[in-house]
Amino acid sequence: MKLNVYLSGEIHTDWRQQIIQGAKALDLPVVFTSANTDHEASDSSGDILGEESDSFWRDHKSARVNAIRIRTSIERCDLAIVRFGDKYKQWNAAFDAGYCAALGKPYITLHDADIIHPLKEVDAAAMAWAQTTDQVVELLKNVVL
Amino acid sequence: MKLNVYLSGEIHTDWRQQIIQGAKALDLPVVFTSANTDHEASDSSGDILGEESDSFWRDHKSARVNAIRIRTSIERCDLAIVRFGDKYKQWNAAFDAGYCAALGKPYITLHDADIIHPLKEVDAAAMAWAQTTDQVVELLKNVVL
Amino acid sequence: MKLNVYLSGEIHTDWRQQIIQGAKALDLPVVFTSANTDHEASDSSGDILGEESDSFWRDHKSARVNAIRIRTSIERCDLAIVRFGDKYKQWNAAFDAGYCAALGKPYITLHDADIIHPLKEVDAAAMAWAQTTDQVVELLKNVVL
Amino acid sequence: MKLNVYLSGEIHTDWRQQIIQGAKALDLPVVFTSANTDHEASDSSGDILGEESDSFWRDHKSARVNAIRIRTSIERCDLAIVRFGDKYKQWNAAFDAGYCAALGKPYITLHDADIIHPLKEVDAAAMAWAQTTDQVVELLKNVVL
Amino acid sequence: MKLNVYLSGEIHTDWRQQIIQGAKALDLPVVFTSANTDHEASDSSGDILGEESDSFWRDHKSARVNAIRIRTSIERCDLAIVRFGDKYKQWNAAFDAGYCAALGKPYITLHDADIIHPLKEVDAAAMAWAQTTDQVVELLKNVVL
Amino acid sequence: MKLNVYLSGEIHTDWRQQIIQGAKALDLPVVFTSANTDHEASDSSGDILGEESDSFWRDHKSARVNAIRIRTSIERCDLAIVRFGDKYKQWNAAFDAGYCAALGKPYITLHDADIIHPLKEVDAAAMAWAQTTDQVVELLKNVVL
Amino acid sequence: MKLNVYLSGEIHTDWRQQIIQGAKALDLPVVFTSANTDHEASDSSGDILGEESDSFWRDHKSARVNAIRIRTSIERCDLAIVRFGDKYKQWNAAFDAGYCAALGKPYITLHDADIIHPLKEVDAAAMAWAQTTDQVVELLKNVVL
Amino acid sequence: MKLNVYLSGEIHTDWRQQIIQGAKALDLPVVFTSANTDHEASDSSGDILGEESDSFWRDHKSARVNAIRIRTSIERCDLAIVRFGDKYKQWNAAFDAGYCAALGKPYITLHDADIIHPLKEVDAAAMAWAQTTDQVVELLKNVVL
Repeated sequence: MKLNVYLSGEIHTDWRQQIIQGAKALDLPVVFTSANTDHEASDSSGDILGEESDSFWRDHKSARVNAIRIRTSIERCDLAIVRFGDKYKQWNAAFDAGYCAALGKPYITLHDADIIHPLKEVDAAAMAWAQTTDQVVELLKNVVL
Repeated sequence: MKLNVYLSGEIHTDWRQQIIQGAKALDLPVVFTSANTDHEASDSSGDILGEESDSFWRDHKSARVNAIRIRTSIERCDLAIVRFGDKYKQWNAAFDAGYCAALGKPYITLHDADIIHPLKEVDAAAMAWAQTTDQVVELLKNVVL
Repeated sequence: MKLNVYLSGEIHTDWRQQIIQGAKALDLPVVFTSANTDHEASDSSGDILGEESDSFWRDHKSARVNAIRIRTSIERCDLAIVRFGDKYKQWNAAFDAGYCAALGKPYITLHDADIIHPLKEVDAAAMAWAQTTDQVVELLKNVVL
Repeated sequence: MKLNVYLSGEIHTDWRQQIIQGAKALDLPVVFTSANTDHEASDSSGDILGEESDSFWRDHKSARVNAIRIRTSIERCDLAIVRFGDKYKQWNAAFDAGYCAALGKPYITLHDADIIHPLKEVDAAAMAWAQTTDQVVELLKNVVL
Repeated sequence: MKLNVYLSGEIHTDWRQQIIQGAKALDLPVVFTSANTDHEASDSSGDILGEESDSFWRDHKSARVNAIRIRTSIERCDLAIVRFGDKYKQWNAAFDAGYCAALGKPYITLHDADIIHPLKEVDAAAMAWAQTTDQVVELLKNVVL
Repeated sequence: MKLNVYLSGEIHTDWRQQIIQGAKALDLPVVFTSANTDHEASDSSGDILGEESDSFWRDHKSARVNAIRIRTSIERCDLAIVRFGDKYKQWNAAFDAGYCAALGKPYITLHDADIIHPLKEVDAAAMAWAQTTDQVVELLKNVVL
Repeated sequence: MKLNVYLSGEIHTDWRQQIIQGAKALDLPVVFTSANTDHEASDSSGDILGEESDSFWRDHKSARVNAIRIRTSIERCDLAIVRFGDKYKQWNAAFDAGYCAALGKPYITLHDADIIHPLKEVDAAAMAWAQTTDQVVELLKNVVL
Repeated sequence: MKLNVYLSGEIHTDWRQQIIQGAKALDLPVVFTSANTDHEASDSSGDILGEESDSFWRDHKSARVNAIRIRTSIERCDLAIVRFGDKYKQWNAAFDAGYCAALGKPYITLHDADIIHPLKEVDAAAMAWAQTTDQVVELLKNVVL
């Protein structure tokens, strides 16, 4: 079974590369998509449409441009991996999880045990909770075989 | 126009009461719903089904019980108000916002200016961003009149 | 049959009142809804959330606030009447018609014969084209009896 | 990410060609679709089914024939570009935008700054507003990379 | 259980009255709806919008006006009764049955045994086939109790 | 919060009455629906349409008649309780659970601990697993308060 | 634009072959599907599952087997051509048209002028009415170019 | 017509292989999918995420992991074959049937005559009931030709 997997969440560690390489090493028939993971490029994606003096509108413009790619990716995916790290608010990851839940798209969370409690609503709608990228790769293998 | 409004987000300040009383003072035809806002009761809602030794499963069980009320409230609402405070992760609020966005339910965010940037994806899908409960009441008045 | 009817379109003539009074005179079981039809109030509905120096963002903010009411009205309606006058661009009326068409909500257009050609795509998806408010009232009578 | 993009709007300037060539120059993986953009052919597409003496029905017949292609294109697209020029009513473009909005299809508007106000409802539901075809090409590049 | 029942099909016998009176005699909590069952009024419902010289367009206009009521009735109903008599083509009844089937609305057919074969596709998607209005009333009683 | 609750499953014990009375004792704003729970009446509900010599078709006819009530009840409910006892195959209860899952309707299972393993797929999609009717009543109280 | 076209309706003339060959002659990128058009094979498609003594159940069984192919074809198609001849009841064609209408699938009717009136509801929801297979081929050419 | 067929149900006999080989022998354009049919591997699919001392949670975790594959398979399939054997509860098969029914996915049941009565609700929503794998292959041939 071929699978289209959307990778959502923090961009400060190489968890995406670990999963992609793990899947590649096992030759799994999985295609991965992501939002723009270059922080600066993501924040400035709306600038091409003209500069904004007000930071709210600059963020608004960039976030709506980025949402074109994100929503299309979610709509097309069979499964999402939603990653929460130990820094920052990461509300966009929780937003993506809620978006998936409402569409009936299965998703797996990836986070450490110390944030179980604040993530309980997000985990409750997930199909699985993984703590390592190796576990995610194993789950993908399980699904596609 | 009668309106069913779901109030999502932090439970440590009295923002819900402020909005409800503000709407009442103006005699607005608005019905409000919420998740269980008693922190302890919310965390223990699954205990009636038997105690759990593992905190992940205790959280899981309670969160799924709570989700019955939350999802029914979102499905029924015409509009959601999603509140972010200055403490805690509040991933459940972002999750609710994503859930609303995917269903096409309009929502308004309520938060201070200092968290604009981490909320940019959540705000980008919102119909409005309010900073005070008075503004929310004014918006409700605008919608229902 | 009770009917919920959304009235979309220009706000410079009293076509809404004519239809509402015509329906009332016949005691038809019809409830009417509309967007905010006060031009100035409609343009400034976002100002409560803070003033904007850039006219694009002021319009954006007000239009999104207004959309809460408009979309809720369209979602709830059984039928829309979409009115085009002889002035202004009235793109919002055509937008509402497209929105109805995509949702499978039946709508009736109300306009003079001299703008048949530019409205051909909008009329093609309509259930009927009326030229006078009396005709609209007659159609409503036909539907609800 | 491959993208299917529907180009909606005026047919009197070469904006479609500019975007298509811009995307080609960058080798973007984008497929473009359009309604029939030959004005005369579009107006007469229903004539093959028999001539009409009444101009309303001629328009009606052609517009419904054209709608087969338009709706199929919109249903299939991942993104629409909706162009408004400085002439004509262009209600079909606003209709397409409303249709996209109701389906949850993201769209970008393309128009000059002098028509911001009459397009405020159409822009409010758009993911971005571009003023030049170069900006649109840059946005497409941003989405597909 | 209250039930909203749409009665579709031929208008030359009093089958609707028999069912309505049968349900009334048993005090069943059922509300019935129908298209306009006055043949002449139904054929001329579009005339109010202007006379047509071409019979195709006269039929088209009236049929689209009538469809407002029919589709609203089908969307609202919990169950449809689709009646086929021994005369006329009655393609509108089969059309309504297909419409119900695609929406997942349960329907019951009501017809004599001698037209089983030509109705096999329509019956195959029905929840039941009744031969008499008494049977239909018994079925309604079974559903609502 | 008012709740519409569908009670699905075995008809050989009085679990429905226990839940209904428990909810009544607490004055919970819950409306309950069920399929026809009279075994003999349920098996013979199609007989009114004519007797069948083949038991497969007799079952088929009755089951399709019963499905009108069941599907309408599920479509309308906010929550289902799906009960599995210690006897019989009870495939209809598992079927209802799958039907709810696909529609996104939350459901709670009610069964003893000794059938956890064969019910693991049904429980995995449930919002909660209860072992006693008292627990179900407590859960309902939790949801509606 | 590639198109998937479902051909529904009578099986006693070679209208399907005319359309398929016409499209082939023009090298149109159209794929056609149909129900089983062999009358005898269609009527007996359920016999493999065991013979039936009752003609209603034989028809029922075959019609449900045939419906697997028909519904899959309709779900997949971009456009349907629904043909009505001058013989037989052809209720299945009207059923397919209603099914398409409810799903929002565009369809074209193909029939002579003498049955305009009984087909008025079916034509009213069609995107076009053609009288000859040549016209249908021209319409297909118009859509795909 | 190419077909994607999901095979649901018991894993103790070789019915899947019989159907797959039968389809292969006839060179039918059918792709088959299944859940993980290795009993032990299926029960332990969640273990990679950490061991559970409580058997309910072990089952829960594995069943949710398995559901990723099952739901994706059902969403993608054109037709399901749902097999019931003479042993075990097989509630997951009935659950899958209900899931298909709610999504409007056609399915065929495969079981012996002695369990007709307990399966009457499951059979009533099926497009066909087969008793042998040869019959299933014949039905597939009928659908795809």
